[in-house]
Amino acid sequence: MVSAARILQRCDELARHSELAGGLTRVFLSPEHRAAAALVLGWMREAGMSARLDDIGNAVGRHEGERAGLPCLMLGSHLDTVRDAGRYDGMLGVVTAIECVAALKGRKLPFAIEVIGFGDEEGVRFGTTMLGSQAIAGVVDPALLAKTDARGITIRQALADFGLDPAGVAKVARRKRDVLAYVELHIEQGPVLEAEGLPVGVVTAINGFSRLRVVLRGLAGHAGTVPMNLRRDALAAAAECVLAVERIARSDAELVGTVGRIEAKPGAINVIPGEVHFTIDFRAPRDELRAQAVRAATHEVESIARRRSVHCDIELLQELGVAPCAPWLMSQLERAVAAEGISVRKLPSGAGHDGMALKSIADIAMLFVRCKGGISHNPAEAISADDAGAGARTLLRFIEAFEAAA
Amino acid sequence: MVSAARILQRCDELARHSELAGGLTRVFLSPEHRAAAALVLGWMREAGMSARLDDIGNAVGRHEGERAGLPCLMLGSHLDTVRDAGRYDGMLGVVTAIECVAALKGRKLPFAIEVIGFGDEEGVRFGTTMLGSQAIAGVVDPALLAKTDARGITIRQALADFGLDPAGVAKVARRKRDVLAYVELHIEQGPVLEAEGLPVGVVTAINGFSRLRVVLRGLAGHAGTVPMNLRRDALAAAAECVLAVERIARSDAELVGTVGRIEAKPGAINVIPGEVHFTIDFRAPRDELRAQAVRAATHEVESIARRRSVHCDIELLQELGVAPCAPWLMSQLERAVAAEGISVRKLPSGAGHDGMALKSIADIAMLFVRCKGGISHNPAEAISADDAGAGARTLLRFIEAFEAAA
Repeated sequence: MVSAARILQRCDELARHSELAGGLTRVFLSPEHRAAAALVLGWMREAGMSARLDDIGNAVGRHEGERAGLPCLMLGSHLDTVRDAGRYDGMLGVVTAIECVAALKGRKLPFAIEVIGFGDEEGVRFGTTMLGSQAIAGVVDPALLAKTDARGITIRQALADFGLDPAGVAKVARRKRDVLAYVELHIEQGPVLEAEGLPVGVVTAINGFSRLRVVLRGLAGHAGTVPMNLRRDALAAAAECVLAVERIARSDAELVGTVGRIEAKPGAINVIPGEVHFTIDFRAPRDELRAQAVRAATHEVESIARRRSVHCDIELLQELGVAPCAPWLMSQLERAVAAEGISVRKLPSGAGHDGMALKSIADIAMLFVRCKGGISHNPAEAISADDAGAGARTLLRFIEAFEAAA
Repeated sequence: MVSAARILQRCDELARHSELAGGLTRVFLSPEHRAAAALVLGWMREAGMSARLDDIGNAVGRHEGERAGLPCLMLGSHLDTVRDAGRYDGMLGVVTAIECVAALKGRKLPFAIEVIGFGDEEGVRFGTTMLGSQAIAGVVDPALLAKTDARGITIRQALADFGLDPAGVAKVARRKRDVLAYVELHIEQGPVLEAEGLPVGVVTAINGFSRLRVVLRGLAGHAGTVPMNLRRDALAAAAECVLAVERIARSDAELVGTVGRIEAKPGAINVIPGEVHFTIDFRAPRDELRAQAVRAATHEVESIARRRSVHCDIELLQELGVAPCAPWLMSQLERAVAAEGISVRKLPSGAGHDGMALKSIADIAMLFVRCKGGISHNPAEAISADDAGAGARTLLRFIEAFEAAA
């Protein structure tokens, strides 16, 4: 039996470890990270696992299988947060996985289980993301440890200050044959499950993303003196681009597109904007669909700029391909969902997750839990006890019935 | 004979009096204002005028008519500047008017001429605008003198520090019967004359303006996780509004409309904007046309917000009615333009000018001089010597032929 109440209570306990009074901010290798990891290691041991910090600061618990040293089913999520965060993003997955192992009451399965509380997924402190899972995947370049935080402290120094051995980071890496799969439970961070009245859903893929920066240069001028037909208004051009991005994103239900930042210069009430900067973020569960959207947006921006005699520069800032969930894992999750009497809803993950890093050493899958209003990265992040319970029961069913790929 | 070279040289001389090294910023009642006014008073006396500072800090020169004390034709413009200004906005009108009086070589006309270099038109220092001309119109509320600049100095104190008598401000006011008309030469600050290849143009009206602030509140969300059909994106809504303002403004050649400021919150590349603030500035030479535009924009913003389930607040920040130029003065200016062999182009002034304040004591008119690229309020502001000459000759013809209204 899993306890939804204990899951929520543990998320509350973790949320107390914050650098921010009256809110939650907990970054990689901070004193709050140490305190949260200590709590998690204690709960792991309480659930019968051996538990330790690895040399990148991940909290790692292991429940051996029918004999010691069997390859593991890896479960988990992250313990770090964004600034002014909610208390379920990351933590729920770690706490629920521990709860499931506890529910086994020491029962041995034909495989080991490892639960990992990754130390760095959000990347707030060092501008890295998924450093914990990258280390486990064995893809952390030692040069990366020279990166510094806002106070000039390197990752290497912060690891040493935390009591870890920076030279040991390479040893954190797992071999493919030791990991049967990576499965993460996480809040949805979006409103799909809520809109459909479902407590959980099966993730099809962690969407890839493309991020662009666009600069439009027209001609600033006096808002009172330049007739409309002589204007080269960079903001009017940008407005067309914003709507073009929206139109392109709406053309396929799997695609999303967002203009999140915009700045108009000089930015005076009585001056025609001469220069506008804005960003575009496209995400999709299929790389070709996303590439198509980028091409379409580029074409639209260029043609709007040309028509309005505005100069445009389009820069690709960042791009990451889709991490598809393994069909054999998805179908096992789907069976667990159905066994709970819940309609199976499959949906992509728009947000990034540790599975993106781990896919190089293992097949991955994810189970989403409904969150209130789809709100995340925000103190208002909330889930119900019923949904926490449904998530945990589904994950436990999945674990108990888990069969490794042939 | 007027000298274009001397006009330009005097604008250059005035531009040296700046609080900003390597640029031009000269605010009301500053040491630079004092130095500029001293230069202007000297040029006035050189042109045969009596000259003095009045108690609001206007430089006032008087050329008597056929007998002392006749009502005057009032000419002039302002001596203060915006921050990082050009050297012709304001100054050209003062210097050209002095040049025209000098060209009379003491000849007496059936009316007096006064040339005024207003001390405050831009309102940069105290957030007032047109304080010099308002004092002459007799509409300065003494309570206004308690307004402070960024360092907490009141206008009253600044007047006293400048050597003026704050109690004398009321005495600056002129009686209607003493002012036959107010005529100002000014750079166009827009591109119309340049686009039509004309050195000067006759202003029909100083446009009224309405300024609005719009706040749209949708719902912020993760750019990766919220499907397009569940979004309430405040920036996409704002983009439609920007284009609606443009469309409304384009519907009438006399109307202009501008969204000059925009801010999207939270303003992160991966977050759907939940709140957007933007401004709207409408100007037109007819108040009804402007009111219509404000109504149409309000209606459009509200209907866009409703359709997108976004909350909207629309606030009227400021509104000033049109100051029409007097037809009898316009036709005298038109004759002067035609006599110079220049096609008569009539155009509204989109920018505000001292005539807006003076219309309560006198009929007003304005003569615009072409400026390069329509650029103003900018160090790149430029005019040609030929155009300075054409403007001065036209103004001189107008003065010499001036007939007061019956």
